[in-house]
This record gives sequence, structure tokens and C-alpha cells, in this order.
Amino acid sequence: MSLKRKKISVIGSGFTGATAAFLAAQKELGDVVLVDIPQAENPTKGKALDMWEAAPVQGFDSYVKGTSNYADTADSDVVIITAGVARKPGMSRDDLVQINQDVMKAVSKEIAKYSPNATILVLTNPVDAMTYTVFKETGFPKNRVIGQSGVLDTARFCAFVAEELNISVKDITGFVLGGHGDTMVPLTRYSFAGGIPLESLIPADRLEEIVDRTRKGGAEIVNLLGNGSAYYAPSAALIEMAEAIIKDQKRILPSIAYLEGEYGYNDLYLGVPTLLGANGIEKIFELELTDNEKAALDKSAEAVRNVMEILA
Amino acid sequence: MSLKRKKISVIGSGFTGATAAFLAAQKELGDVVLVDIPQAENPTKGKALDMWEAAPVQGFDSYVKGTSNYADTADSDVVIITAGVARKPGMSRDDLVQINQDVMKAVSKEIAKYSPNATILVLTNPVDAMTYTVFKETGFPKNRVIGQSGVLDTARFCAFVAEELNISVKDITGFVLGGHGDTMVPLTRYSFAGGIPLESLIPADRLEEIVDRTRKGGAEIVNLLGNGSAYYAPSAALIEMAEAIIKDQKRILPSIAYLEGEYGYNDLYLGVPTLLGANGIEKIFELELTDNEKAALDKSAEAVRNVMEILA
Amino acid sequence: MSLKRKKISVIGSGFTGATAAFLAAQKELGDVVLVDIPQAENPTKGKALDMWEAAPVQGFDSYVKGTSNYADTADSDVVIITAGVARKPGMSRDDLVQINQDVMKAVSKEIAKYSPNATILVLTNPVDAMTYTVFKETGFPKNRVIGQSGVLDTARFCAFVAEELNISVKDITGFVLGGHGDTMVPLTRYSFAGGIPLESLIPADRLEEIVDRTRKGGAEIVNLLGNGSAYYAPSAALIEMAEAIIKDQKRILPSIAYLEGEYGYNDLYLGVPTLLGANGIEKIFELELTDNEKAALDKSAEAVRNVMEILA
Amino acid sequence: MSLKRKKISVIGSGFTGATAAFLAAQKELGDVVLVDIPQAENPTKGKALDMWEAAPVQGFDSYVKGTSNYADTADSDVVIITAGVARKPGMSRDDLVQINQDVMKAVSKEIAKYSPNATILVLTNPVDAMTYTVFKETGFPKNRVIGQSGVLDTARFCAFVAEELNISVKDITGFVLGGHGDTMVPLTRYSFAGGIPLESLIPADRLEEIVDRTRKGGAEIVNLLGNGSAYYAPSAALIEMAEAIIKDQKRILPSIAYLEGEYGYNDLYLGVPTLLGANGIEKIFELELTDNEKAALDKSAEAVRNVMEILA
Repeated sequence: MSLKRKKISVIGSGFTGATAAFLAAQKELGDVVLVDIPQAENPTKGKALDMWEAAPVQGFDSYVKGTSNYADTADSDVVIITAGVARKPGMSRDDLVQINQDVMKAVSKEIAKYSPNATILVLTNPVDAMTYTVFKETGFPKNRVIGQSGVLDTARFCAFVAEELNISVKDITGFVLGGHGDTMVPLTRYSFAGGIPLESLIPADRLEEIVDRTRKGGAEIVNLLGNGSAYYAPSAALIEMAEAIIKDQKRILPSIAYLEGEYGYNDLYLGVPTLLGANGIEKIFELELTDNEKAALDKSAEAVRNVMEILA
Repeated sequence: MSLKRKKISVIGSGFTGATAAFLAAQKELGDVVLVDIPQAENPTKGKALDMWEAAPVQGFDSYVKGTSNYADTADSDVVIITAGVARKPGMSRDDLVQINQDVMKAVSKEIAKYSPNATILVLTNPVDAMTYTVFKETGFPKNRVIGQSGVLDTARFCAFVAEELNISVKDITGFVLGGHGDTMVPLTRYSFAGGIPLESLIPADRLEEIVDRTRKGGAEIVNLLGNGSAYYAPSAALIEMAEAIIKDQKRILPSIAYLEGEYGYNDLYLGVPTLLGANGIEKIFELELTDNEKAALDKSAEAVRNVMEILA
Repeated sequence: MSLKRKKISVIGSGFTGATAAFLAAQKELGDVVLVDIPQAENPTKGKALDMWEAAPVQGFDSYVKGTSNYADTADSDVVIITAGVARKPGMSRDDLVQINQDVMKAVSKEIAKYSPNATILVLTNPVDAMTYTVFKETGFPKNRVIGQSGVLDTARFCAFVAEELNISVKDITGFVLGGHGDTMVPLTRYSFAGGIPLESLIPADRLEEIVDRTRKGGAEIVNLLGNGSAYYAPSAALIEMAEAIIKDQKRILPSIAYLEGEYGYNDLYLGVPTLLGANGIEKIFELELTDNEKAALDKSAEAVRNVMEILA
Repeated sequence: MSLKRKKISVIGSGFTGATAAFLAAQKELGDVVLVDIPQAENPTKGKALDMWEAAPVQGFDSYVKGTSNYADTADSDVVIITAGVARKPGMSRDDLVQINQDVMKAVSKEIAKYSPNATILVLTNPVDAMTYTVFKETGFPKNRVIGQSGVLDTARFCAFVAEELNISVKDITGFVLGGHGDTMVPLTRYSFAGGIPLESLIPADRLEEIVDRTRKGGAEIVNLLGNGSAYYAPSAALIEMAEAIIKDQKRILPSIAYLEGEYGYNDLYLGVPTLLGANGIEKIFELELTDNEKAALDKSAEAVRNVMEILA
């Protein structure tokens, strides 16, 4: 029942990792450690220091430390993994598998060593397979190894709908199952504006365009930026999940969760609606799906399995 | 008495500009327009879109638009200028003058055309001279053309003190006069932790080290990053000033203000304590200075004048 | 495009009015004026002063003024009416009509005189009829005279569901049409936890119990308190609506709106889903109802008409 | 390192207790238990339920429970005591001593039984003596039994100054030593607006009037209300202290602390500047006082001792 401050470590000090660290500090979720490899130690320290210098202005009491030494992450409550190679224009997500798998292995070892009780959130792509890797490498219970994709996909969908209808983002709820990106399964019948079904507010073909734009949401940003990928919304998504866990909020958020029979899948990490609280994934919700939805989810699961076959 | 949303435009979509746009959106100060040159239009749009996609997660209702078309900034309430060349390791601040002066001229013309009633906040370095340039080029009244440096310098000082004493940043107050950087004049006798004079909490030589570190705070980050300069704390500083103006908060914050006799200077932009509210700089506070402080401020003013002589 | 602070006046300094004033100040929606009759001037001033003395601790810049002089409310952006006799245990809502109608008439005259451009939010019971009275007496356009009941009813429903399922209130959405209280029409098929239909998470009979408890939510509090009625949730509901208007948020919230043909009713104030923004009620959403729902709404409308017949 | 939610119990469900409970919930400091005697159980439950029904609107995840059963407070992290008889117009603070001492004894027993590791914040008047009583009765270490007065006194002072100067409350810092009320020792030389000494912004006689108004701040509210005493600012003060402890913020705040030699006093609870963090009072700051200040503090200490002599 100690009141000691919580601790969040963010592995990878690229744009997403750095932004995640900053958002965690802003929310005073706890003290924040931003970690990268020794070659990136100075920039990592520079970013962390710059964030800390913002604390007096933004009024947050979370200290932000940059480091390349995992000992600084000891006893983290939540560890967020953003390390790995970023997707570049034209690069398929599968190309990333092997490089990033090695990164996950190295990172997992350090987390297991220094923060054996942490809950881990994985963002590195291809995220389903990378989360699986971290699960296997750390040996942590499944509820404490979680991947992020659905919060981001849903956020994009909601942002597009809010803009389409000129309605507050606060009132849009969306729902996404399955893998990240192309095989994402958005359940538009479970998507609402102020409780009103979107299907009654937006013509079907226009809604389909929005769904399609959501599916390609990552690529849209990649193409616009020309160099690099999205980081504001992804880091916000990570921190929403981290907050749910650290503050034991019992949020219903889509997570990439380890399935043991749910939705008919086994030994697979896939995006499903979950309850997030102090114990990580505290529950998986199984929705009744239409035949079309189930077929789409099967396709998504198959895509994940295809990536997993690349895993060494 | 319209309740129309406020509008903030940020010129320059580099790290500082982008982060400032995001912080403004987070605070729901109004809708945000992020502007850059046509060659950077796509990345600017990508960053703005990425921020907007974070809105459903972070729960803010500020729309963020990326553009290279100044018409999109029309009727802004506050315009923040971050455009220009960034300081690189080894580059003196003076080297930037001529390039950035041209940028200020171009930007000023657009602001005067599209947002004649806006209040302008300038960050571009060398900030004292650049603010002066914007003042002259826009022809705006002095209270609506303001430079930022003291909020950032003070924030750095407070962050260092908070870390030194292991005390909440919420309780540290600092005070900085004069120019940004080397000739900054920190008034340690007006600096406190929970109201307790810092001079009674920190030994004089250690306090002097902290002052010195503050003075070189920008360079410290530049050197750590290796490539680029600080942006988290600078953008937080800008947005604190923007918030004070947009919400008419009557904050006492250090600003780079146009002086007409205050502190004995004329026709000069220099960092002084100001009251920020709906009308921009609503008041300049004149403190009694010790001889040493006045001498340091004179040196600072002279440094600003030296830069201003480079202005075309 | 002035940045002058917004102004919210709250008429009635009882528990609900006072709490609403405090919540508005906390959110820095603008400066707050708390008004009551001359006989209650001192306590009103005392409450306002006490709130203002909390400002340095809570960090809000909204000044709170207590007064019995309507001149102090001049040029309010939003006026909230909580004045009138409160419902006591055993008292039917209809008993209140005549007394409170007189209060509404007196208050309307003052608002029309001092704040002709304000948007008015009415809480006083029976709220449907009282909102109608204010609409007639002020002569304001219908979009600027709005009653509150659905936000509160929905909040109660969501709180009960959150407790039932041990799930974050952040993820529960509910939906209520019609009059306040007994004839409230909760649309459980439009109610969700994290986007999952409540009907699939809670057994039908249990859900019906929750609906029933919601319907009697006001009476439950009245009976527990023994003396007086609810004020925390009602004032929070009012301030959510005020915030939507003052910050032009384009929220979809249930409002008591003046109907001219919508849902088949005319010249009636009834609870319906609305879009709230700078112009008050900017849109009324017409949902397709089932026969049962339409019948329940008819009953609700009839109950409102019955009260309106008492109006002088 | 459990992420279990924190728990705050508030003893006494009067206005201050109830408001403190609500403010704690708003800040999501943890789950909140509002406790009162069995005779007040229903109103206590009603208030707590009303607060909880505000949660979906205000968006906080803290559950609020009303009870008369101390078992519900088990394992609280922080316990706030507001129970006891309130000061009425004309009643001296000393009159309260005996009644409230008995209340403190009863409450202390329950806290010691159910939450042996809690940190206790006492508001009940006369607060110095009541805090002493709780310290003795619980047998808790001195760092975990803390009285509130200086945060409130300082807040009042800052509010008056902010109004006087028309400056943001965010920029006013004040400093108060000693007992609550008449013998309060405000250190105006340690009070600032934006770092500028108040003594250079406000004429001496006017500043003295503000100090005097601060000293009588409680009575001013009591007189205005006519019935009852202040609760908004007092509860905000309590929650600022609770937040500092629960979030381990290392704030410098004035507390009523047990002195063992500090400032030359022994075995006495008196208002002094303290460091508040996870361990309650982690440090007492000893300021150098002028002779006048020391004399005033002596008088304050003597007043406290006079009250303590009444203690049974």
C-alpha cells in the first residue's frame, strides 16, 4: 500500500517513443524512463531533458529520464515497447519481421530481468507477431503482454467520422477487431455518434469510404510525411492503455490479446475487445459476429499467422 | 460576444511548431492551423492529420489543419511564428539573422493580410531581433507583437532547481530578465521554492552553477540531440503565453516586449516581466534592480542591439 | 473576435446553483455570477467568495461573484436557471408548477433585459414546462432556450451500469428520450459499454431494474437525503451543456428542445437528442423509433402537456 | 508495486467533508469513502450516490461510497477528518474543543483499527489541538498526522491579492505560519505576484488590510452565510494536501506539523512550511524569522497551548 510513484519505461526514443513518454509525463502517470541503444544515448537524454524542462510550464510532476542503461528501468509498472525499425514508404509490414523480432528478443530479456512484474505494451510492427514474440521471450503471463492497434485504428475512424459530421470527437464511438491495417475488421454496426448508429447518419457508401480510409490510415500518414510514420495518435493510443492499467480504470478498449479459444482461435495474438485494469487484460469480451464479420476476422487471423510463420 | 471557436495559427511545422500546435489542441484553446511553405505542404498535412487522429483518444475538440495556404489562417486570434532556420551545433545565433529576417518579412506580410487583429508570438531566433522585425513589418501595435524567451529560460531554471532539491516543479518560481541565452539575467533573489528564497536552500556556488546551466540551456540540448534543437519546453512556453492571451488570464510572465523608456531603453525588444491578457501585453512591470542586475541588463540590451544592427 | 472572457450567470444560489457555479469556475468557462433574491444576498455572496478563495488552490482563473443585482449579469453568454422551489419528499412535480412559473417569469424578464444574446439553460422543475415558460417570456429564439434532463438521466443510467459491470464510466453510453423522471424513455438498444450492446452484457430483467432505478433516480436521492434533492449530478449535467455551448463543441447531448414537427410534436418542449454548439441547439436528431418507444414517447409528451395546462 | 487503486476516506459528511470527497473523486485520486455517524447514514449515502452519478458526466473513475460503517474505510491510504461541530457565528473556537475532542477520540480509534498505515489530514477546529489529539489517540508517527490551515489561509490571501491586482491566481504566492485565524502569521515579505514582491506592488497599509482580512477570512464567510461556515476553499485545501501525499508530489505546503524543537517549540502542533510526499510530512523547513515574526509566532504558539490546556 505504498504511495511510491509509479514508473513507466518507454523503450525506443524515436518519435513515437518520445511522444509517448511526454504524454505519460503530462498525465502524471508516474516517473518516466526513456530508453534507447547506447549509440542513441545522447539524443535520448536530450529529448528527456527537453521534456523535463517543460514540466514547470505544463505543471506536471513526472520526472523524465533518458538513458541507454536498462538498470534505470528497474521495477517499472508498465513498459512500452516502441523500439524497432519503422515502416518506410513502399515497405511491406512483413519486411520488418526479422529485424524487429531480434529487437523484441533483446528488449524482452532486459524487461524480464529488471521489471519482472511489469505489464508490457507493444507497438512495434508487425505488432501482432511482435507481441507474440515478447510474450514468448519474457515468459510473462498473457494478461501482462499486450499489443496496441485497435485503440489507434478506432481513433482514426472516430476522427474521420467527427470531421465528416462536424461533431465532437467526444461523442463518437467506434469498434475495430482483428489485425492492424489492411485486415482490420471495423464493426460499423457497433459505431455511434452520441449513441446514434452511424449507419443512420452516414450513407453506406460514404461510410465504406471512411472504413477504407481507416484501414489505410497508417499508409496515408506515411505517404504524407514522406519520411517516417505517424506518432501522435499511436503514442496517444499507447498512453490511453497505460493509463487504464496504471490507474486501474477498468476500461473497455481493443487490445491485441493472446487468445486461447476465444473467437475460435488458439495460440494467437489478435485484436479483440478487452477490459484493461491493474492486472492488464482482465477480461476478453466475445461478441456475436455476423458471418461476414467472422469471415473477415478469419482473414485477419490468417494474415497474422502468415507473419508469425516468418518468426524465427 | 460570439461563442465562435478561437483560432490559433502556427507558422513553421518543424518540431517546435508541430509540438506547439499539438499542445494548443490538447488545451482546446481553439482550432489550430499549422502552416509551412508549399514544399513542406505534405509533411505539414501529415503531422496535422496525425494530431487530429489523436483527438478522440485525448478527448480534445480542437481541429488541427495542415496547410501551405495562408488563407487558411484567416482571422486567427493568435499567430505563433516558429518558422526559420534552426540553430545548429557551433552556429552562432547571429548567423541566423539574415536568413530568418527574410522569413519574418514574408510571414509578417501574410499575417497582416489575413489576421490583422491577431496577437503574434515569435520564437524564431535571434528572437529579440526577429520580434522587432515582425513588429516593424506588420505595423501592429506593440502590445500585440511579443517574443518568447523568458518563459522558457525560467522553466529551465525551475526544472534544474526542482531536480536539485527533489521538490515539485509546481512550487518553484524563478525570474529571468533580458535577452535569451548568454546574456540572460536571472534574478535569483526573486526565485523561490514554496515561497522560500532559493538562496537559503541552495549554496551560492551551486546556485550559480544552476544559473549558468540555465544560460546555456539551449546549447545543452543542441549538443545532446546532435541534430536539431529543443522543442518540448519551447513549445510549452509558447502555449502558456498563448493560453494567457486567449483565455485573458492576466498572467505575469516574462515576455520580449517593445520598450519605450521602461528600464531606460527605447525602441528595443527585450525580456521583461509583463502582464499577458486578452490585449496581449497589457502592462510592463518595472522592478528595482541592483547595480549588478542593471549592468547585466545593459549588457543584454547591448547584445540585442548588436544583433539588430545586422538587420537589413 | 474579442478575447474578452466569457461570462456565465447562474440564477439561484441553492445547492445546485452553487455547485454549478463552482464547476463552471473549475473548468474556466469564464467568469461566473451567482445570483439570488435580495433576501439571500449575503449567503450568495458568502458562497461565491468561498469558491473564489478556492481558486488559488484549484488553479482556476474564473472570478466568482455573488449578487442579488441582475445588472451584474449583464452580457452573459450563458445563463443557467436553477431558481425555484425544490422538490420535497412526497411532493409531486406538478405541485411546483405555479410557484416556479412565477419565478421563471421574473427571471426571464431580467435575462431578456441584461443578456439579450445569452443562451439559457433551465433546470427548474417541472423542467419541460418551465423551459417553455422561459421561452415564451424571454421571446428568445428556440435554439437559445434549452432544458436539462436527459444528460442527468443518462448519467444516472451510466453510473448504475458502470457499477453493475465494474467498468469505467468513460466507456458507458446511454440514451434517454422524453420527459424527466417517470415518463423518461430510455433506449436501451442504443446503450453500450465500450461499444458492446448492454443487452448482451446484462440480463434483460436486470437491465429493466436499472432502467427503473434510473427513472426514479431523483426520488432515490430525495429519499436518502431526507431534506433536499440531488445537486452534484444535476449541476454537472448543466455544466456539460454549458461547456458544449461556450466552447462550441458540437456535442450530441439530449436536451429539452422546442419541437416544431420533430417526432410528430408541435409547440412542445421535450427531451430529444440535439447538437449543442455556439448557437445553442444547432440540430435535433430524429431517430427511428420502434412502436413501443414511440408509444412511450407519446405518453411522455402527454405528461408534459398535462403539466403545461397548469401554466397560467 | 501493486496498481490497486488508492483509497481516500473522508470522515464527516457535512459540507466540507462532502465537497472534499467530490474534489478527490474529480481528481481520480482513488476510490472515496464518505463516512458519518449511523444517524446520518442515509444523507451520507445520498450525497455519495449523487456524486457517483456525476462521474459519467465529469468523466472520473473514482467510485464514491457513503457509509456509517468504518469497515468500509479499511486500508485507506489517506483519511481526512472533517467531523465535529462547526463554528457558528459568535462562537469562539475554544468552545468547540471539548465536543470535538471526543469526536477525534472516537474517530482515531476507528482509523487506527482499520487503516493503520494511513496518513491522516485533520480539518476539525480548533485544528491545532484536534490534530494533536488525533496524533496522541492513534499513536501514528508524527509524519502521518497532519493538520490543515496554512493552505487555506494562504489561498485566501492569494485570492484577495489576485482580486486587488486583477492578476491571475496562478501567479500569486503567499506564505503563512502559525495557528489558524487570529494568530496566523503571514509573511508578506515572502509573498509575490509573478515573482515580484507584493510589497512593491501594493501600498503597505493596503497590504495590511488584506492580511487582516485573511486573518478573519473564516469569520467573514461565517457572517455572510449566516448559517454554517466555509467549505469550498477548506475542502480544496485538504485535497491539495491529499494529492501531494497520494501522488508523492514533494510539494512545499504549509502544514500543521508536530514540532520537536523546530522554531524552538516542543510537543506542539503548529503551522510551518513542510514537504509533503508519500511519507506525509517528509521535512519541516525552518525559515529565519525577523524579531517581529518570531514574536508573532510565539503568540500563535501560546494561543495553541492555551487551547491544548482545555484538552482532557
